[in-house]
Amino acid sequence: MEKLLSPAALRGAIRSGAHTGNTSGYAPGFVQCNIVILPADWADDFLRFCQLNPRPCPLIATSTSPGDPALPPLGDVDIRTDVPSYRVFREGRLAEELPDIRALWRNDLVTFALGCSFSFEEALLADGLEVRNVTEGVNVPMYRSDMDCIPAGPFAGKMVVSMRPFAAADAIRAIQICTRFPAVHGAPVHLGDPGLIGIADLDRPDYGDAVSLYPGELPLFWACGVTPQVALEAARPPFAITHSPGCMLVTDLRNSRLAVL
Amino acid sequence: MEKLLSPAALRGAIRSGAHTGNTSGYAPGFVQCNIVILPADWADDFLRFCQLNPRPCPLIATSTSPGDPALPPLGDVDIRTDVPSYRVFREGRLAEELPDIRALWRNDLVTFALGCSFSFEEALLADGLEVRNVTEGVNVPMYRSDMDCIPAGPFAGKMVVSMRPFAAADAIRAIQICTRFPAVHGAPVHLGDPGLIGIADLDRPDYGDAVSLYPGELPLFWACGVTPQVALEAARPPFAITHSPGCMLVTDLRNSRLAVL
Repeated sequence: MEKLLSPAALRGAIRSGAHTGNTSGYAPGFVQCNIVILPADWADDFLRFCQLNPRPCPLIATSTSPGDPALPPLGDVDIRTDVPSYRVFREGRLAEELPDIRALWRNDLVTFALGCSFSFEEALLADGLEVRNVTEGVNVPMYRSDMDCIPAGPFAGKMVVSMRPFAAADAIRAIQICTRFPAVHGAPVHLGDPGLIGIADLDRPDYGDAVSLYPGELPLFWACGVTPQVALEAARPPFAITHSPGCMLVTDLRNSRLAVL
Repeated sequence: MEKLLSPAALRGAIRSGAHTGNTSGYAPGFVQCNIVILPADWADDFLRFCQLNPRPCPLIATSTSPGDPALPPLGDVDIRTDVPSYRVFREGRLAEELPDIRALWRNDLVTFALGCSFSFEEALLADGLEVRNVTEGVNVPMYRSDMDCIPAGPFAGKMVVSMRPFAAADAIRAIQICTRFPAVHGAPVHLGDPGLIGIADLDRPDYGDAVSLYPGELPLFWACGVTPQVALEAARPPFAITHSPGCMLVTDLRNSRLAVL
């Protein structure tokens, strides 16, 4: 599949089954979103959880009403077909992975689209910074920190953070760049000693892959979109759907339009 | 002397000799400037030095013409009388310290007013951050780094940096705040390991006083206004005048007006 397809054309290819799998690197310049779909009677608590924890859960769009598969601010989206791969959770446990969810759709389902680190990684790369997980061609390393999210109803848990190493001057520049993008996790939440946020060993991430940390570099830690997934699994709603890792909703929103300045 | 005097009233008190000495904490909310005064035949190189090294030498205003003691953008200023204490350098060496320089004024002198860290320290404190040198009531510790300034004619030298320690989350916030104020040194130039910028021992600053660094804190390093003074001494102009340390030009400019955003 052509990586430079427009977001609408890429969604069309996903909808028709011509594109399945990872969306990383596709439709550069456009926002890709983490997706969480919940029954309406769980949606209000999840919405509050996002609003209380905007750094790990930066909410970009929600359904206009339960059962409506559109997400108007993000383009001509049908959330039942436009994500390359879905994970279905029952009682908080992964039940199946599906290429579309038309057969499972219900008139009480509410969709949440959350910002993702692809957007700020693009801004870092565009500024000439090296993003280690991109250089090394691996998934970013993610760690369960000891920082508590603010609970909302059944949704609670520790903040998951992603880590990217930088030399000091680049770390300062990365903080400046990401500060402009609060809708995609914003500035790092920690830098330096991983032990101060409960991370024992950078070489053993809880999710993703370890990356090299060179002498003189500092690890920078960003609030991560895996946080709401962990909170979701812990809350054990009877039914929930998310995107599969790396298989995001590609939107018509430009990354640059997320910049607050 | 009343600390809450307006800048104009404070300059009047300084002009009349009623106030001598430090201006730290006076006229809160208003920009205070480092001052360098040079003969016109040295001024062009110094101006280029400032433009090439804006982080240690953030130029806020210059004379409109040689010999003119006014600095219109900064208020009703007479630079010959409105600084509490002046240092006179001859051949790069401190020759005398004087309460005014009317007797030394020449029609070829050019004044440079440079931003100072008081402005960003005020912004950090206003945001609820602790500024260690303020808490401990001492001068900020300053160090000669191994980072070269870009030379301009006879002006050259290493960048002097000031250091303030912060816990990681506060360090990130301090970077955000100071990024808004490029006219007063802007964001830090380094953080973390002092050895990476040629500083052997934080407890032995080259200027100012050592401050406490608590476990879990990172040292943040800002480009410092002592840099141009060191370059000035090394360049050995036959004649130059600066403010005495801590005895700044208090201007009518509000710190908030220096914010780029």
